[in-house]
Amino acid sequence: MAAPGKAEQEALDRRFMAAALRLSRRNAGRTSTNPSVGTIIVRDDGAGPMIVGTGVTAVGGRPHAETEALAEAGELARGATAYVTLEPCAHHGRTPPCANALVNAGVARVVGAASDPDPRVSGKGYAILRAAGIEVVEKVLAAQAAEQMAGYLTRSLKKRPEVILKLALSSDGKIGMHGAGQVTITGDIARREVYLMRAEADAILVGIGTALEDDPALTVRLPGLENRSPARIVLDRQIRLPEASKLVSGIDRVPLYIAACLEADPLRRSVLERAGVRFIGTETHEGGVALPELLEDLGALGMASVLVEGGAKVASAFLAEGLVDRIVLFQGPEAIGEGGIASPIDANHIPAGFRKLREMRFGEDGYAEWIRP
Amino acid sequence: MAAPGKAEQEALDRRFMAAALRLSRRNAGRTSTNPSVGTIIVRDDGAGPMIVGTGVTAVGGRPHAETEALAEAGELARGATAYVTLEPCAHHGRTPPCANALVNAGVARVVGAASDPDPRVSGKGYAILRAAGIEVVEKVLAAQAAEQMAGYLTRSLKKRPEVILKLALSSDGKIGMHGAGQVTITGDIARREVYLMRAEADAILVGIGTALEDDPALTVRLPGLENRSPARIVLDRQIRLPEASKLVSGIDRVPLYIAACLEADPLRRSVLERAGVRFIGTETHEGGVALPELLEDLGALGMASVLVEGGAKVASAFLAEGLVDRIVLFQGPEAIGEGGIASPIDANHIPAGFRKLREMRFGEDGYAEWIRP
Repeated sequence: MAAPGKAEQEALDRRFMAAALRLSRRNAGRTSTNPSVGTIIVRDDGAGPMIVGTGVTAVGGRPHAETEALAEAGELARGATAYVTLEPCAHHGRTPPCANALVNAGVARVVGAASDPDPRVSGKGYAILRAAGIEVVEKVLAAQAAEQMAGYLTRSLKKRPEVILKLALSSDGKIGMHGAGQVTITGDIARREVYLMRAEADAILVGIGTALEDDPALTVRLPGLENRSPARIVLDRQIRLPEASKLVSGIDRVPLYIAACLEADPLRRSVLERAGVRFIGTETHEGGVALPELLEDLGALGMASVLVEGGAKVASAFLAEGLVDRIVLFQGPEAIGEGGIASPIDANHIPAGFRKLREMRFGEDGYAEWIRP
Repeated sequence: MAAPGKAEQEALDRRFMAAALRLSRRNAGRTSTNPSVGTIIVRDDGAGPMIVGTGVTAVGGRPHAETEALAEAGELARGATAYVTLEPCAHHGRTPPCANALVNAGVARVVGAASDPDPRVSGKGYAILRAAGIEVVEKVLAAQAAEQMAGYLTRSLKKRPEVILKLALSSDGKIGMHGAGQVTITGDIARREVYLMRAEADAILVGIGTALEDDPALTVRLPGLENRSPARIVLDRQIRLPEASKLVSGIDRVPLYIAACLEADPLRRSVLERAGVRFIGTETHEGGVALPELLEDLGALGMASVLVEGGAKVASAFLAEGLVDRIVLFQGPEAIGEGGIASPIDANHIPAGFRKLREMRFGEDGYAEWIRP
């Protein structure tokens, strides 16, 4: 069989990169501060391309995807093409960096999607490959890879986590009812989708208003994913969260952070610290938490994505600061009517700079997602 | 009164910087990923220098020290000298960076100790001050400041936490007895000192051997400091730690991480995850955890200092890798004799490159500390 032509090769590359990106989703949200990367090793001995090794960053963040895929391929990696969703790492620890592992395995060609902005890697991973005579093709399905790894890339580039704003709107654009506690807006299927979003985030954030009004647990309640609840963060400058709240009582299983002015009430702080709450000291801005500083501190704690779940005031504050990277709107079929709390945004009023990424239905509920590059 | 001469001014600067460094210790270990910094504002209206404002980074990391000191000084900051133990921050969030706050307050002179290696600050904080016509004196008591902020500086420069190796040796250089569980080597006063060291660290690390043999809790048990226990980390590649261990049962109050090969035993991992244990995936090196990679991951999680508390094998591994930044040896008065476990180092065999920082006695026990620049 003749070697594929240029267009044919590009189509093949996109096809295998798409597979590597799907594979990389397997451990999304479970790789700690390492990104979840996918690697597929493909060789063609004349009978058409054949996958000889696959790997994804291990749960917990290591080993990296390339290690697993190369181990699976063994000698078959020699002369093969490796598809990597992120530039292979280039800095030495005790084990060789993945770029060198690809060289040592005799890979002939590496196709990459996203570049790694980490200054210890950026460009150096690809340079190691090229210096060893490996053909490197960069940026194949780069936009899709960047969207999938937005948390890792945002934290690396902006020193803060990706902020995902999630709101559930009634058919008349309300997100709840004053004084009515937690109001059901979307159905079971949509709620399960929210659990999945939580399971992939590093933290869920709400304001103290929502915490007091709804007494939410903010955990993942899906069979098999009970261990996947991320940290919870409450913006609570005056330290008003009661010890009896579900957020505090769930603390033996899931960490709880309160972002507060720590001079506010040392006694309440001390009571909550004894209950296991961790505090993040904040600067004040117009009576609220200074959000850019808070996000910087969350990034420093290793958090790459924060899911903002309400309420209206917190959502508005993140939007007003230009700190939202992704917007997810669920829309239920029922109206709330009089007394409802208006949403700060709806599908017809998305801030400039966002583009719609996808639209779906979950049972009776609509779903739409926008991102900003 | 005449303005002080050059030598006199330098002596004054050292004196006030020493005070600022002592002040900065107040919140050491309690400022999350921000370093604990001290600021003192001094003015001289002709009757000799007078302190008009003091500040230390708030518990939880914000506000920064300069904010507090400037608020206290108010109008008296105008024309005064500010002593800062770390270069003032220079990057904008919602609140102005500290360098600009010093400019806005009309400070005439800034004396700094350590420079901030954070690329968003490095040199820029001092440059903002100079551009505003403020006289800047850098590097006053810089070595002492660097030693006090070693955790923050190490994480910023090396992308890993400072590693402090602590060992308690009997008079004949043993650190325990095979098969005897936890052996008491040092007295009460030394133990309280260890609790203080733990309270200032971001994590305590032990090997699975020590965890199984001693069943330690690795917490801070000092009245008033019960909330100050840092995260515990066990190197446990095969996931052997029992659920019934004190490390696991204390998890509702203090986080526990296991550094493991996550393919080792998915069932045991799942049981421990349900109990609240967090896992860090590791690479293998010579049958053990690849330590540089692990430290990189701990740094990414925001940890700036790790206290390595044993046993001999783990201590030897960190020393062999050249990953120890500080050595602390306690030496008790009694011999252990036959059957004792030899310490990998003692006061007469400290690796090259370390210099002795201090030597003390706690009751019957000796204490010595070495650091490596």
